[in-house]
Amino acid sequence: MHPFNDLTASEIHRSRAAVQSLHAGEALVFKAITLEEPDKNVMIPFLEAELSGKTHDAPPRLAYCVYYIKASDTLMTTWVDLKANRVSKSEAADKEFHGNVDFNEVDDVERMVMQDHAVLEQIRRLKLPPHLTVIAEAWGFGSDGLADQMRQYQVYMFVSEVGKPDSNHYARPLSFSPVVDPVRMKVIRIDLIPTGADWALKPLGPFEDNGPNEYVPEANNLRTNLKRLHVSQPDGPSFTIDDENVLRWQKWHIRVCFNYREGIVLRNVCYDGQPLFYRVSLSDMTVPYADPRAPYHRKQAFDLGDVGAGLVANNLKLGCDCLGSIAYLDGFISDRQGNPLRKENAICIHEQGNGIGWKHTNYRTGRACVVRNRELVIQSILTVSNYEYILAFVFNQAGQMDYQVRATGILSTCAIDPDTQVEFGTIVHPGVLATHHQHILSLRIDPAIGSYTHGNSLAYQESYALPHEPAFNPHGNGYIAKTNIVQKSEGLDFDINRGRDFLIQNPNIPNSVNGLPISYKIHAPPMQKLLASPDSFHFKRAEFADHEIYVTKYQSDELFSGGKFTNQSRGGHGVKNWVARKDSVVNEDIVVWVQFGLNHIPRIEDFPVMPVEIITVSLKPVNFFTRSPAIDVPPSTLASNQSVQVNKPGCCGSRL
Amino acid sequence: MHPFNDLTASEIHRSRAAVQSLHAGEALVFKAITLEEPDKNVMIPFLEAELSGKTHDAPPRLAYCVYYIKASDTLMTTWVDLKANRVSKSEAADKEFHGNVDFNEVDDVERMVMQDHAVLEQIRRLKLPPHLTVIAEAWGFGSDGLADQMRQYQVYMFVSEVGKPDSNHYARPLSFSPVVDPVRMKVIRIDLIPTGADWALKPLGPFEDNGPNEYVPEANNLRTNLKRLHVSQPDGPSFTIDDENVLRWQKWHIRVCFNYREGIVLRNVCYDGQPLFYRVSLSDMTVPYADPRAPYHRKQAFDLGDVGAGLVANNLKLGCDCLGSIAYLDGFISDRQGNPLRKENAICIHEQGNGIGWKHTNYRTGRACVVRNRELVIQSILTVSNYEYILAFVFNQAGQMDYQVRATGILSTCAIDPDTQVEFGTIVHPGVLATHHQHILSLRIDPAIGSYTHGNSLAYQESYALPHEPAFNPHGNGYIAKTNIVQKSEGLDFDINRGRDFLIQNPNIPNSVNGLPISYKIHAPPMQKLLASPDSFHFKRAEFADHEIYVTKYQSDELFSGGKFTNQSRGGHGVKNWVARKDSVVNEDIVVWVQFGLNHIPRIEDFPVMPVEIITVSLKPVNFFTRSPAIDVPPSTLASNQSVQVNKPGCCGSRL
Repeated sequence: MHPFNDLTASEIHRSRAAVQSLHAGEALVFKAITLEEPDKNVMIPFLEAELSGKTHDAPPRLAYCVYYIKASDTLMTTWVDLKANRVSKSEAADKEFHGNVDFNEVDDVERMVMQDHAVLEQIRRLKLPPHLTVIAEAWGFGSDGLADQMRQYQVYMFVSEVGKPDSNHYARPLSFSPVVDPVRMKVIRIDLIPTGADWALKPLGPFEDNGPNEYVPEANNLRTNLKRLHVSQPDGPSFTIDDENVLRWQKWHIRVCFNYREGIVLRNVCYDGQPLFYRVSLSDMTVPYADPRAPYHRKQAFDLGDVGAGLVANNLKLGCDCLGSIAYLDGFISDRQGNPLRKENAICIHEQGNGIGWKHTNYRTGRACVVRNRELVIQSILTVSNYEYILAFVFNQAGQMDYQVRATGILSTCAIDPDTQVEFGTIVHPGVLATHHQHILSLRIDPAIGSYTHGNSLAYQESYALPHEPAFNPHGNGYIAKTNIVQKSEGLDFDINRGRDFLIQNPNIPNSVNGLPISYKIHAPPMQKLLASPDSFHFKRAEFADHEIYVTKYQSDELFSGGKFTNQSRGGHGVKNWVARKDSVVNEDIVVWVQFGLNHIPRIEDFPVMPVEIITVSLKPVNFFTRSPAIDVPPSTLASNQSVQVNKPGCCGSRL
Repeated sequence: MHPFNDLTASEIHRSRAAVQSLHAGEALVFKAITLEEPDKNVMIPFLEAELSGKTHDAPPRLAYCVYYIKASDTLMTTWVDLKANRVSKSEAADKEFHGNVDFNEVDDVERMVMQDHAVLEQIRRLKLPPHLTVIAEAWGFGSDGLADQMRQYQVYMFVSEVGKPDSNHYARPLSFSPVVDPVRMKVIRIDLIPTGADWALKPLGPFEDNGPNEYVPEANNLRTNLKRLHVSQPDGPSFTIDDENVLRWQKWHIRVCFNYREGIVLRNVCYDGQPLFYRVSLSDMTVPYADPRAPYHRKQAFDLGDVGAGLVANNLKLGCDCLGSIAYLDGFISDRQGNPLRKENAICIHEQGNGIGWKHTNYRTGRACVVRNRELVIQSILTVSNYEYILAFVFNQAGQMDYQVRATGILSTCAIDPDTQVEFGTIVHPGVLATHHQHILSLRIDPAIGSYTHGNSLAYQESYALPHEPAFNPHGNGYIAKTNIVQKSEGLDFDINRGRDFLIQNPNIPNSVNGLPISYKIHAPPMQKLLASPDSFHFKRAEFADHEIYVTKYQSDELFSGGKFTNQSRGGHGVKNWVARKDSVVNEDIVVWVQFGLNHIPRIEDFPVMPVEIITVSLKPVNFFTRSPAIDVPPSTLASNQSVQVNKPGCCGSRL
C-alpha cells in the first residue's frame, strides 16, 4: 500500500469501528473519514528512494475522522492508526469550530422546514395556485458575531411547479427565510427579507407569479442545426493508469488522489523523471455576496471548507461530461454512518486536442513544421446547491500544468419589487435579483522544483525601462527584467504595470546552458481582491482573499488557507496566521498559495444557467529544461489525423 | 457584387491597367491593390435594407493601389473607380512615408547582400568549416531620427548548414549587419554588433560554433507513444458559406473578408438577426525590442503595417493546421507587377468542441442537464520572418466572439560572448541571446450593438465597497457596481483593483426585462504597456501601445491605429492624433481599439520553436439578450457523440 493511496473501503470500515469503540453505545454522525496527510519528513526520503528504484520505510498510515455525537453540538476529531487498528488520538474541537454542511443534513433540514407550522403559515399567505408549490434550500449560516455561536442553517424559500421536480425554482424566489437549529432539528425563527432597495420589510402577501425560466431541454425550443462532432482514438488513449492511480502520459507522472474536502489532489507530479510538485490541490474557495442587508450580509460560501469538493462531486456520465476516449476513477468517501461510500465516476481523465502546439514556416524554403497541442485533462465537477464548478488539471507536452475552473450553474437569486433597481445586483428575470458576488479560489502548491530534497524559493520578476540617458540607452528603447527573491513568508500581488511574474525556483540547480535557476512560473489572471471591509466577518473569514499570492514555510497540518473548519468561522486559523510567523522562505520547504477568481456582476445572459466562465492558472517551465520540451512532438499528418476538407480545394467560388 | 466583397482577380487586373495607363512607359513596383473601404454613410442604409429584405443603392466600388515607380523612392497612392475603369484620384505620398516591406524585395536584398564584396570579406574572416555557410535575413530598418529618411533594410546575418536549407540558423547568429538601400539595391555600410554586455565592438574573428539547435522532425528524436486522435463530423459541418463568403453558423451571420494588410476582416457580424459589429479586424501590432545598443535600438516590427498580415498569411494545409472537417478560403492579393495572386487556403474555418458549455445538477432529483461548448474558428496564420502568429476569431453558442492570438515561431536572436549575462535578454543556446521584447496588438472594433443606425457609447463599470456604516452596510460586506459613460475620445486602461470592465452599449435600446442598455463587454488580459521611453521613436511610432482601450468617433480612412504607413514611421498619424480631436463619443458612431499582448521575457523553453503562448480578447453579451442564448443548445448524448470509456466502469481496481 503506497502511503499516498486514498483510504480503501476496508480502511474506512476499520476507522469507523475504532472510532465507535471510543463511544460505546452512542450514535455518531460522521462528517468525514479520510487519509491523514502522511508525514512529509518520511515521505521525502521515501519518494527519493522510489525515484532511484529503491525502497524506504513508509510513514504510519492514519485515518482522520470528524463527527458529531448525535444530537450534540460537540465536534470530535479522532485519528486512527490503521496498522494497529486503534485510535491514536481523539479530541473535541473548540466550541468555535463546526463541522461542514453535508447534504444528508441539508435534506433533513429542508424536509423538516416544509413541515414546520410557522413556515406553513407563511406559505398559506402566498395563496399559491394549484400548479405551484414551495421548495426550501438550506444554506450554511455564515457569521456576523450576533447569535451565531451555535451551528445553524439559513433556509431560502422558492416557488416551484407541482409535478415538475426539475423546474427552475431560482426564477421564483420568496422573501422569507427560516433559521434552523440542526441539532434540535427545529425552526428557530423566520426572517423576512427586504425586497426593495433598502432595509424595509414587508409582510408576506399573495405570490405574484412572473412565470417560469426553465433550463431543462423539454421546456426549451432546441436548436436543430447542430451537426454531430465525434472525437475518437482508434488506438486507445496515450495514457496509462496503474493500480495505485498513477497516471503516466507524455513524460508526465502524476499520482491522482481524491478526498471529501479537496476533491482531486495531485501528488508527486514529475516530468521526464524530474520532480516538480509534491502536492497540488484546490485549498478553498470563498463566495461572498454584495447585498448588505440581513440575512444576506452573512451569505458567504466556502465551497470546500463548508461543504467539501469531494462530497459534492458529480457522478460523471459517459457521453455527457466529456468527449472522446474517457477513463473514469471512483472516489471513496464516507457516509454519515461512517461507512465507505463509492463516488462513482468522480474523476474523468481524457485527452484533447487544443489547436496548434507550435509552428514555424521557413519563408525561404516554404517548409512548414507544425505540431498539434495534445492535452491531458483530469476533471471533476462540483454541484454546490445552485452553482457548478468544473475543475480540471490540464497538462500539455511543453511541460505546462494548468488549473482550469469553469464556473457555471444557476445564480443565487432573491425577490425584488417591480420597478426597483439596486447597485448590488442585476435583475435577471422579472422580480428576480441576482446579487453581485465574488468567487475567490485558493490553489495550494507544494512545490518540489527539480528535487524533493532541495529547498525552493519564490521569486518575482519585473520589467523596467532603462533610464533614457546618452551612455547606455541613448535612444530610449531599452528595458530590463530584474528578479527578486521573497525573503519571509508573506502575501504578495501581481502588478501588471511592472510586468510582475512569480517564479518558484530551485536555487540549488542552475540551468546547464544559461546558468539561471531552474524555475516554474505562475501565470494567473488578475483578480479584484475581496471587496468586503477589512473589519467585516467576510474579510476575517476569507483569510486568503486579499492577496493573489501567499508564500509560507511548510508545516504539517497547514493545508487549508481559510482554516480547517470554515463553517461559521471567524478567521484566525488560516494562511494569515501562518505568514505572521515571518519564516524565512529562501531555499526552504515552501508552500505557495495562488488566489484567483472573478467578481461576478451577473448578466441576464447568466440565467437560467450560466454559460461557462473560464479562469485558468498556469504553471510553466522557465529555464527548467535546456530547450522546448515539445520539440520532440511528432508532426500531425493527414494520414494519421484524417481531417477532411468540406469545401472543394483551390477555389474561392466553391461553396458548401 | 456586394460592396463588401474583396476585389476579384478581374478587378485587380483592371486596377493595375488603370494605374499603368497613368504612368505610360514606366515600370511600376506594386505594394498593394485592395478594396477601398466602401462609404459607411451609404453602407448603413444598404445594410439596413438588406436586414429587412429590401435593396438600396451601393456605394461606388473603388480599388486602392500603392506602388513605387521603379528605381525611385516616390510612393504613389492611386484610387481606381471600378465601374468606370478609370483612376479617380492619384497622389504621391509625403516623403516621410514608405511602402511596406515585401518578401519579393526581401529576397532580392538577401540575394544581393550575399554577393556584396564587403559582406563576402566579412564572411571570409569567419573561416567557416565546409559544412557551414552564411544566410542573410533582411529586417525593416526602423527609426531613430539619424539618417533614416531614406528607405533602408537592416540585414542580420546567421550561419547555417550546407545542404540543410531548413537548419535553424537562429541558433548561430553573427555580429555584423549590412545596411541596404533597396532603391539602388546596394549595401550602404556594414554595422558591427556588440556581443558583450555593453556597447563595445569587436572586429569579426573566426566563427566559434556552439552546434545546432534544430526543430525539423528528422533532427529530433521524436516521441513514439502519442496515440492518434480523430475529430470527425459524420453529417458534415454545422456552418454554411455562400458565394459572397457569408458564413452562417448557430445563429451567427459573419461576412468573411481578406486583404493584404489586415488579413481576415469580419463585416456585418450579427446574431439571430441582430447587428453586433459593422467591422472587426486586427489593426496593427508592434514588436519593440529591449536591447538599447545600435543597431538593435531601431528593432521594432509593425507586423501588419510594415509587412501585411494578408501578404504573409500561410497557405494552410489539410491535416497539419486544423483537425476535423475544415473549409478553406483563398484570398486574393496582388503581386509586385500588380497581377492578382491567389493566396490558397489563406483562411480555414472549422468547428471545435471546447469542453462543457453549461451544466446544472439538481441535487434534489440528481438530474444533470449539460450541454457541450461548440465553437466556430475562423483562422489565419502569419509568418513574419522568424515569428508565427496564429490569429483566430472564435464564436460560441452563447453569443460570445473571441479574438485569439497564439504566438509561436522562433525567437529573434543575436550573438553573445561566453560567460556574459545581460538584463535585456535570455541565453537560449550557448552563445545565443534572445532579447526581451513586447508584442502589443491593436484590435479595431467598429461596433453596431443592436443596430447599424443607432449610436453606441463606451462605458466602464467598476465595483466599490460600500462604506462600512450602521445605516445601510452595518456588517461591512456590501459592495456595488457603478457604470460611467466615456464622454470624449480618449485612451483608457483596465484597473483590476476597481474591477473595471469596458462595455460597448447601445443607449437607445433598453433590455426588455431589466431596462439596462444592451451591451457587449470587452474582456482582455492585462498588458504591460510599452516600456520604451515616451520621448523615444519606439513610443512615438507605436501610437496605440500606451493604453489598453482607445475610443474614437468614426471617421473614414481611420483604420490603422499606428498610421497608414508604418515602415520607418515617426508617429503622428495614428490613433493618438484622432483622439486629440476630443470628439463626443456618447451615442455616436464610435470605434473601439483594444490593445493587448505580452512582454516576452524569453525562456530557454521558447527555443528553437516557442510553444504557443495564447492571448484572448473576448466580447460577451451583457444584458443584450433576455436570458442565456445558449439555453437552447441540445444536450450532448452518448448516442450522438459516441464517446467511449477506456477503463472498465464502476471499479477503481480496473486499470488501463
